[in-house]
Amino acid sequence: MADNALESVLSITALFADYASALDERRFEDWTELFCEQCHYEVQSKENWDLGLPAALIYCDSRDMIQDRVTVLKDTLTYPYLHSRHMITNIRIHGDAGGAYQVSANYLVLHTTEEGETRIYSTGKYQDEIVFTETGPKFLKKIVIADTSAINNLLAVPL
Amino acid sequence: MADNALESVLSITALFADYASALDERRFEDWTELFCEQCHYEVQSKENWDLGLPAALIYCDSRDMIQDRVTVLKDTLTYPYLHSRHMITNIRIHGDAGGAYQVSANYLVLHTTEEGETRIYSTGKYQDEIVFTETGPKFLKKIVIADTSAINNLLAVPL
Amino acid sequence: MADNALESVLSITALFADYASALDERRFEDWTELFCEQCHYEVQSKENWDLGLPAALIYCDSRDMIQDRVTVLKDTLTYPYLHSRHMITNIRIHGDAGGAYQVSANYLVLHTTEEGETRIYSTGKYQDEIVFTETGPKFLKKIVIADTSAINNLLAVPL
Repeated sequence: MADNALESVLSITALFADYASALDERRFEDWTELFCEQCHYEVQSKENWDLGLPAALIYCDSRDMIQDRVTVLKDTLTYPYLHSRHMITNIRIHGDAGGAYQVSANYLVLHTTEEGETRIYSTGKYQDEIVFTETGPKFLKKIVIADTSAINNLLAVPL
Repeated sequence: MADNALESVLSITALFADYASALDERRFEDWTELFCEQCHYEVQSKENWDLGLPAALIYCDSRDMIQDRVTVLKDTLTYPYLHSRHMITNIRIHGDAGGAYQVSANYLVLHTTEEGETRIYSTGKYQDEIVFTETGPKFLKKIVIADTSAINNLLAVPL
Repeated sequence: MADNALESVLSITALFADYASALDERRFEDWTELFCEQCHYEVQSKENWDLGLPAALIYCDSRDMIQDRVTVLKDTLTYPYLHSRHMITNIRIHGDAGGAYQVSANYLVLHTTEEGETRIYSTGKYQDEIVFTETGPKFLKKIVIADTSAINNLLAVPL
């Protein structure tokens, strides 16, 4: 493995950490910057995904759509929790066909309520394609496949 | 540290991710392939482990035994959950005496019920020996030491 | 990235694993050895941290103070749980200004009760400064920012 391959692994790991902290700190503009302009972002329930059903909880096929989504969130969402925390593990690079790295990872998102109690909000898997641009690695494609479906927020937040 | 030492770290990290996804996606045949033919796989409760008691929840001393175990599972287990998710963290290589890497890691397994609710199933520690074979790194020895003992599945599934 | 930069990443990752296992195995003397003699260790609630309030749950500004803290713990704490498990993820190196690496990470601490049930104890973020000494990497500064505030232990244990 060449030195730059090792670097790629570390850069991709850093991308996931930046993705998590941008969401957890509600820096949504920073978060959208981690996607390519031409990109695909989708949140699916694992049940639907396994059955091949098309209905997605969130579906965006450009960064502009992602930005719109986030603007809506900022204006309308009354958060029923104080803090969000993303634990991202099992980051696995499967290959880099056509210049894009196929990467999977597991996530666990924890929410802490105003009373200070921490609960599991969602767990599942990321199935992503990552490309290296002049400004670092970015998501060309990100599919969130959520095991958890009993999410008590009517309006889905990005995972 | 030589380049190949860095590679070893990344390969071992990938092995843990593959171990997790094989179990979570119930690809049990793929999962058994991650063990050496001559191997040792054991699931212990931390309480028993700390007291030096021999009783294991699962005990296999060859890949054949692991395969048998998995066949039984497939035929008899009526899963009380829909989805399983392994979060593996704190992967730590302690040394590589005699060609085998001594590696520890922490795990958290989450189960999601048919109602879509996610719960903690088990947490604990892996205490492993990993060797590099012609077909990549494999587990020579894997000891799962589970903190959680109130597991409500009568028949233990691999952790 | 130079080879030694890659090594630093791996050493820092190992430091976090050692930090976790020392706490989980209650090897408090080993745990204190992971800090510099002149150091800063602080546990804050995220609420206070975000508001800029000074009140810390734990505040130590030298390794001696950390050692005192731990001695008190050993003598007085009647643990209401059997096992503790630290999951540390999203380790991110932000830079190394002035010889110290700025590193953040997320943590989840799980406690398992005597009845064998595992519960979320605390989740949050580490905001650290790490330096390389003759005896390996050590924490020059460690700030724990806990999302969870409904901690039912009167006497805070290190996180």
